[in-house]
Amino acid sequence: MLEELKKEVYEANMELPRRGLITYTWGNVSGIDREKGLFVIKPSGVDYDKLKPEDMVVMDLNGNKVEGDLNPSSDTATHLELYKAFEEIGGIVHTHSPMATAWAQAGRALPCYGTTHADYFYGEIPCARNLTPEEIEEGYEKNTGMVIIETFRDRNPVHVPAVLCKNHGPFTWGKDAANAVHNAVVLEEIAKMNFVTEMLSRGVEPAPQSMQDKHFMRKHGPNAYYGQK
Amino acid sequence: MLEELKKEVYEANMELPRRGLITYTWGNVSGIDREKGLFVIKPSGVDYDKLKPEDMVVMDLNGNKVEGDLNPSSDTATHLELYKAFEEIGGIVHTHSPMATAWAQAGRALPCYGTTHADYFYGEIPCARNLTPEEIEEGYEKNTGMVIIETFRDRNPVHVPAVLCKNHGPFTWGKDAANAVHNAVVLEEIAKMNFVTEMLSRGVEPAPQSMQDKHFMRKHGPNAYYGQK
Amino acid sequence: MLEELKKEVYEANMELPRRGLITYTWGNVSGIDREKGLFVIKPSGVDYDKLKPEDMVVMDLNGNKVEGDLNPSSDTATHLELYKAFEEIGGIVHTHSPMATAWAQAGRALPCYGTTHADYFYGEIPCARNLTPEEIEEGYEKNTGMVIIETFRDRNPVHVPAVLCKNHGPFTWGKDAANAVHNAVVLEEIAKMNFVTEMLSRGVEPAPQSMQDKHFMRKHGPNAYYGQK
Amino acid sequence: MLEELKKEVYEANMELPRRGLITYTWGNVSGIDREKGLFVIKPSGVDYDKLKPEDMVVMDLNGNKVEGDLNPSSDTATHLELYKAFEEIGGIVHTHSPMATAWAQAGRALPCYGTTHADYFYGEIPCARNLTPEEIEEGYEKNTGMVIIETFRDRNPVHVPAVLCKNHGPFTWGKDAANAVHNAVVLEEIAKMNFVTEMLSRGVEPAPQSMQDKHFMRKHGPNAYYGQK
Repeated sequence: MLEELKKEVYEANMELPRRGLITYTWGNVSGIDREKGLFVIKPSGVDYDKLKPEDMVVMDLNGNKVEGDLNPSSDTATHLELYKAFEEIGGIVHTHSPMATAWAQAGRALPCYGTTHADYFYGEIPCARNLTPEEIEEGYEKNTGMVIIETFRDRNPVHVPAVLCKNHGPFTWGKDAANAVHNAVVLEEIAKMNFVTEMLSRGVEPAPQSMQDKHFMRKHGPNAYYGQK
Repeated sequence: MLEELKKEVYEANMELPRRGLITYTWGNVSGIDREKGLFVIKPSGVDYDKLKPEDMVVMDLNGNKVEGDLNPSSDTATHLELYKAFEEIGGIVHTHSPMATAWAQAGRALPCYGTTHADYFYGEIPCARNLTPEEIEEGYEKNTGMVIIETFRDRNPVHVPAVLCKNHGPFTWGKDAANAVHNAVVLEEIAKMNFVTEMLSRGVEPAPQSMQDKHFMRKHGPNAYYGQK
Repeated sequence: MLEELKKEVYEANMELPRRGLITYTWGNVSGIDREKGLFVIKPSGVDYDKLKPEDMVVMDLNGNKVEGDLNPSSDTATHLELYKAFEEIGGIVHTHSPMATAWAQAGRALPCYGTTHADYFYGEIPCARNLTPEEIEEGYEKNTGMVIIETFRDRNPVHVPAVLCKNHGPFTWGKDAANAVHNAVVLEEIAKMNFVTEMLSRGVEPAPQSMQDKHFMRKHGPNAYYGQK
Repeated sequence: MLEELKKEVYEANMELPRRGLITYTWGNVSGIDREKGLFVIKPSGVDYDKLKPEDMVVMDLNGNKVEGDLNPSSDTATHLELYKAFEEIGGIVHTHSPMATAWAQAGRALPCYGTTHADYFYGEIPCARNLTPEEIEEGYEKNTGMVIIETFRDRNPVHVPAVLCKNHGPFTWGKDAANAVHNAVVLEEIAKMNFVTEMLSRGVEPAPQSMQDKHFMRKHGPNAYYGQK
């Protein structure tokens, strides 16, 4: 079942090592079929060079495994909560990509310092709070999702398709699995640029709002004119 | 038309991912035929691994598309202004290469700290000011060019073939498209070196003027003696 | 003799250059056969691209060469002491991987700033003290091992399978040679992340203890649920 | 003539791009035949992917070209002075490798922070002073050599086979061209490690002298025991 989606999710997973975003098995990608209410996710702890499309695990939105011989990613419950809360998204990625993870470990949101950021993310990329000991103890992965959702209470997840989880690492999402990986690549790149920016100029200010608006809108607004129609 | 120039511009564009200067489609190269008054530029948002020489778009200096099925780069109006104002240049590159972009995001000119810089750029590489909200609102890409030209009012663009656009990224140029890419590679390399230099020694001074003169002149002066004649 | 172990240790050694952990011959891996009381180690100063499984040197736990035409690694006496003191370990790695070595040169333990660290190492990765001039003069490599053992007097080497030797570099270990290399790769990655973390936020605190417990235990505890059973 | 040496010097030059030490043509390697009093050096400004062994230029120690169709490296006069002053050396390398160049631009000697350094260089790697405007004006490349020699007035160039030229970049040397390149690779690696070391601990001290002695001597002393005899 969902052979096409499994293949898409498999390909999106394989893009992670190709783009240098992961070491060993430190990442996972999922994609959802909204009509069927099922999502497909990488199995837990399987080496990327042994992964096959048919290893992908099919889950329903109650957290039941619908198909698959292997255990789903240990982060499945986080993906599940995000799919339920963010209805417009079609794919989710988690990595420990080094530069984004460094910002997460520093507990800092990524400010918008330039157009590279503004072309993809409208405003800062927030850093979600730590889970409480209670939230960690019981339902850790589900609560990781809940805290991300709390972080987006006043944010539009389509306009800011990424979050940093404090002392952990990034989650990104998008209209499908491939797009979510694209956003993970962009996040890592701006995490690197912004690190160097701050080293070069302590106290540097975010890019002017008018510039942020312009770049986000020329790619994502109703009158977008970037690319081919 | 302009088959030779299209091929040159195509090859120069393909050099960007090979040199690690771009992620996804974050860059564009153009080249001009001064006699015909036409320039050739990458189409907007097309993946580098799908790009073909015949996809290059031909533009005139009034901003009209003369040939090509695809939309030209969204930055075409910036290239156009630079070709009109800087009459000696034959090629232009825009990238978001990470180290140069970090300096642009920090709003800082690149000081000349050594001979690597002085071999290519005479004096600091300036950082152009931000556009005003009005300049962004109406004719953003054309005004990006106008602000670069304003930055070079008292500078020779042949002696300093690069600029950083604040909160955005670098533009470089050269005698042709390939040479403009060469300068983009050099810029990224010195942006990296100079970052580390400042980290190692806060308050470090630029290289002595006599050394800057010597290195620029031994490669570019009337009595240049670097390389083969 | 020990053909299978020689092959494993050879393969683990070859993984070091593939993972970018070493320059030239700056590293060595060994593996032990606990039943026979013999360990196999890389020969000293042999280029990785000329190394063959049959070049591996077999040593006993008294430091005698049991088999092999070549001299064993100059760090053999360190490996020997660690095998004798840490009875649960099956493989050891020494490298000069750049980021871990930088922490060692700074004389600093690696704090646990996030889950990437906590997934593998329980608590900080300690930095062993410098050897005294006397310890250096006589039995330097053996004493390097003794000082590592001293550092783990109140630590469990299975829970913290790595150490930084001050002004020198890292040693890691694991259940076998391949696992010890795996830990060396992880160590280098977190050394990089943690460096950037500190640059982004001077005075940053370690990850909450409850989070460290959770991540270490979900991979290594009695009820571990990461990966496939 | 000197076909064997030309091939060695060619191979040593080609190792520079393979090891990531150079961008474009920013480096050169030479090797000397002490008996004949002739040295072989890369031609100036020739692309590495077009270089052939027969392009190498043969020079005598008076600075005359003895054989070769191309101009020798613009840094030939520097190599010449070093060969005359440092009689034990057989090969010389100049690069603009980024991390070593950053230290040179910062005008700072590389302190010995660990055994990676001490395995190859005995004590700090000095930074030579800037040339005076007069030294730059007349005989710049020869004077670059003279200032390096001045820097080694109280140093043994065999024990410290590298120097940083202020605001310029590194020169390294060795018993032959290949060994000089080996030292250039090591220099870049420790320049990177030492940069991170200082960022992690401002005010960090050099490695203890006894440790520096031990590591240099176990590889280079009369009783060296590293590697195979």
